[in-house]
Amino acid sequence: MGGDFGPRCIVPACLAALAEYPSLHLVLVGYSPVLEELIADCPAADRHRLCIEHASEVIGMDERPAQALRSKPDASMRVALELLRSGRAQACVSAGNTGALMALSRYVLKTLPGIDRPAMVSAIPTATGRCHLLDLGANVDCSAEHLYQFAVMGAVAAEACGVVRPRVALLNVGTEEIKGNQQVKLAASLLQQARGLNYIGFVEGDGLYRGEADVAVCDGFVGNILLKSSEGLASMISRRIEALFSESMGSRLLGSLALPLLQRLHGDLAPAQHNGASFLGLQGIVVKSHGAAGSEAFQSAIRRALLEIRENLPQRLHGRLEHLLL
Amino acid sequence: MGGDFGPRCIVPACLAALAEYPSLHLVLVGYSPVLEELIADCPAADRHRLCIEHASEVIGMDERPAQALRSKPDASMRVALELLRSGRAQACVSAGNTGALMALSRYVLKTLPGIDRPAMVSAIPTATGRCHLLDLGANVDCSAEHLYQFAVMGAVAAEACGVVRPRVALLNVGTEEIKGNQQVKLAASLLQQARGLNYIGFVEGDGLYRGEADVAVCDGFVGNILLKSSEGLASMISRRIEALFSESMGSRLLGSLALPLLQRLHGDLAPAQHNGASFLGLQGIVVKSHGAAGSEAFQSAIRRALLEIRENLPQRLHGRLEHLLL
Repeated sequence: MGGDFGPRCIVPACLAALAEYPSLHLVLVGYSPVLEELIADCPAADRHRLCIEHASEVIGMDERPAQALRSKPDASMRVALELLRSGRAQACVSAGNTGALMALSRYVLKTLPGIDRPAMVSAIPTATGRCHLLDLGANVDCSAEHLYQFAVMGAVAAEACGVVRPRVALLNVGTEEIKGNQQVKLAASLLQQARGLNYIGFVEGDGLYRGEADVAVCDGFVGNILLKSSEGLASMISRRIEALFSESMGSRLLGSLALPLLQRLHGDLAPAQHNGASFLGLQGIVVKSHGAAGSEAFQSAIRRALLEIRENLPQRLHGRLEHLLL
Repeated sequence: MGGDFGPRCIVPACLAALAEYPSLHLVLVGYSPVLEELIADCPAADRHRLCIEHASEVIGMDERPAQALRSKPDASMRVALELLRSGRAQACVSAGNTGALMALSRYVLKTLPGIDRPAMVSAIPTATGRCHLLDLGANVDCSAEHLYQFAVMGAVAAEACGVVRPRVALLNVGTEEIKGNQQVKLAASLLQQARGLNYIGFVEGDGLYRGEADVAVCDGFVGNILLKSSEGLASMISRRIEALFSESMGSRLLGSLALPLLQRLHGDLAPAQHNGASFLGLQGIVVKSHGAAGSEAFQSAIRRALLEIRENLPQRLHGRLEHLLL
C-alpha cells in the first residue's frame, strides 16, 4: 500500500516479477478490494502463485514510527512482517514509510545477536564498480559500536554480491588519523583490531566515487544526505546534457545521434534509486523500494529480495557475527 | 607555501591576478629565497604591487592544528594572518592545511561578537542557480546554536552575492518536522523564531540540487562529505561521458563534435572546486583555496577575496548579527 503511487504501481510490478521468475510466489498484503480490482485488470496474471492477505490499515508516509507501532496492529506493513516471522514468507518488500518499516521490522523480527540496530545498505556505482554504502538513514545518531557493526554487515552484504575480501572503509572528512568526529575515530580503532575484516581506513566523499572501497560506513544522517544529493546531482547533470543538446539545430542533431549513449549513462547512474535498499541485521529479509520510484524500481527490489533469499543473507551474517562480535 | 603544489603554483596565480586587477596589491608570505626565485622567472611581474614577507616556518598539510598553533610562531600562514590583524592586508588567501588555517584564524583574528565558531562556505551549482552551503568541514560537531549562527552567516554571504531575501534551509534526511537528529530539530525551532531571516524549513540532498534553497546549513562533517562526494560523482560522470564518446569510430566523431558542449558542462560543475571556500564569522576576510587545485583555482580564490573586500563582508555580517543575535 506504500510509496508515492501505492498499489497502482506495486501490483503491476508484482505481476511482472511473477512472469520473470516461474518459481516465485507472492503474497500481496493490503486492502483486498483495491488489490483484487488491480489484479482483475490483468487477466494474464498467474493466480496460482499470487495470493492476497487482507490488512485493514495503512501507515501514512509521514506518520511517526512510534505511533505506527502502537496504534495500527492491522497495518499492511505489520501484517507482511508477521508473515515473515511466522515462516509463511521468506522476504518482505515495501515502498512505504521507511522509519515505520524499520521500527516494525525491529519489533516483529528482532535483530540478530550482536546487532543493536539494523542498517540500510545500497550499492552505489563508482568509477571501478560498486560500493556498498551504509547506513542510508535508519539511524541518524550512531555510536562507534554501531558503525563497527555496520562495517561487519556491509562486508557480508558485499561478499553475498560476489566481492572477494571486500575493502571496508569509514567515510570521513579526511584520510589522516586525526580527522573526523569522536565516533568515527573510535570506530576506526575498533575496526583496526577486528580479525577477518579487510579494513582499509578512512575514505573521503571523492574517494568513494573513485572506487577506493567496496564498503563505506557512515551514520544514517550522512549516508542519506550523500545518497540523495548524489541522486539530485546526477539528475541535474542529465538535464543539463539534454539542455546542451537541444540548444541549436546543430546541437539537437548531435543530441539525437548521441541519445543511445546518453541513455546508457543515465541507466548507469540510477541503480541506487532503482534497486532499493536492504535492511541488514534483522532475523529476516526486508527490502525497501524507493518511494518515489515506479513499477520497475519495485520489481528491482523484488529481485534484490530473491538474491538475499538465494544467498541466505541473514544466516550468513549470523555466522560471521558469531565469529567476529561474540 | 601551502597546497599540494605549493608556491610553484601560487606565485604564477598571484602574478596573473596582478595583471587582471590593476589596483590590486599582493603580499606573498613564505620562505623568501624560494618566492624570489619564482618571481624572477617572470620578468613581466609588476614588482611595485608585489612584496614578499619572509616567514621561516611552514605548516605541513597533515599537521595537527593544535600543534601548528603552539609550535610554529613564524609559520607563513600565521604571519599572513598577523598582517591582516595589523591592518597591513585586507584579506588572506591560503591553499594550506584547512584545520590549521581555521585554528590560526580564530586565534589571531578572533570571531565576530555573537559567533562561537567560524564556518566554511562555498556556492555550489544547482538546477536554478547557486546554493551557499555551510559548514564545509571546519566544525565536525555542531550544536543547534552553531547551526543557527551558520544560517545567519550564510544568508549574509548570499546577499553579498546579490541574492535578495535568500531562502535559508537546514539540510536534513526528510522535510517533515519529525525528521532528523536532535541538533537539527532544535536549530529548526531557533530559526523559526528568527526575525528578518527567510527560513524555509528542511531541504534534502536532492532538493539542494533542484535549487530549493539559496543557503543550506549543516555541520562540517555532513557538508564536507556532500561537497567531496559531489566533486567525485561529477568527475566520474565526466569520465564516463568521455569513455562513451571514445568507444567506436562513430561515437568518437560524435564526441569531437560535442566537445565544446561537454567542456562547458565540465566548467559548470567544477566551481566549488575552483572558487575555494570562505571562512565566515571572523573579524577579517580569509579564503581557502582548494589544496589539490591548480593556479587557476588560486586565482579564483583571490577574486573571491576581492569580492568580500568590496562588499565589506565582515562588517555587513557584524551589523546583521547585532540585529539578530544580540
